[in-house]
Amino acid sequence: MSRTEDVELTNMCMICDGKGNVLVQNKVNHPTWHGWNFPGGHVEKGEYVTPSVIREIKEETGLTIEAPRLCGIKEFHKSKDGKRYIVFLYIADTFSGELKASNEGEIFWYPLSELSASDKLIDGFGEMLPVFTKDTISEIYYERCTDECKTMYC
Amino acid sequence: MSRTEDVELTNMCMICDGKGNVLVQNKVNHPTWHGWNFPGGHVEKGEYVTPSVIREIKEETGLTIEAPRLCGIKEFHKSKDGKRYIVFLYIADTFSGELKASNEGEIFWYPLSELSASDKLIDGFGEMLPVFTKDTISEIYYERCTDECKTMYC
Repeated sequence: MSRTEDVELTNMCMICDGKGNVLVQNKVNHPTWHGWNFPGGHVEKGEYVTPSVIREIKEETGLTIEAPRLCGIKEFHKSKDGKRYIVFLYIADTFSGELKASNEGEIFWYPLSELSASDKLIDGFGEMLPVFTKDTISEIYYERCTDECKTMYC
Repeated sequence: MSRTEDVELTNMCMICDGKGNVLVQNKVNHPTWHGWNFPGGHVEKGEYVTPSVIREIKEETGLTIEAPRLCGIKEFHKSKDGKRYIVFLYIADTFSGELKASNEGEIFWYPLSELSASDKLIDGFGEMLPVFTKDTISEIYYERCTDECKTMYC
């Protein structure tokens, strides 16, 4: 019996400057899904997950992060085909290099304490923040109910 | 372009008793791969990862763990078909219930500080322990070299 399944693997990283600010990206390169989030992207085939987040952050911010720490995951099953989608969520406190945005969108430092109150967040991003900020939460996923999609933390 | 790939998803958990001991399973139900490790198993299709480790621990130890914390992952590509294999690694400090082994193998408390020195560990398990015990390590993976398989931490 096959124990494998078709999965889309992605990453996202909260980069902290040690002064209470985090690096926010204003995503603009998608037709409908845009707004503030943290940088990240896809894990390529054959690539490992932690090396993939280091690569994506370099591409989208110009920074080389060191020892990113896995703090949790986001999971859901895509409504289109039911396939599992996993976002590996990291925190990086150490980095080097000069800030340089990509065509994904501009990047800027923003106070973490004020982030959840912003009305510019990309759809679903505000709900993910507790996985980054609370040690007692390792995952956010969506449970399908009869007529709604319930957000679950664990 | 499809961004998905065929992946085998599994989990493993280090359960801590608060007195320096961790719950070890002496795996016996596999023809060749046996020895001491931590309990865990497969993520079923449609099941989410953190709920899956709670279920597996209940099945293999009798314990109900609370708020298991994702501390890292192990990844490799299987030599047979090249497919990605991910083990989600958790730590649980809080649990309830009575210890009860399954047919996977006996379970027992053992001092974490003495575990890496044991000659009874299952193949590859000793190399995984730093992901559980060091906050600066989030992943262990194997990099294929010309004539050897190199263990990488990040």
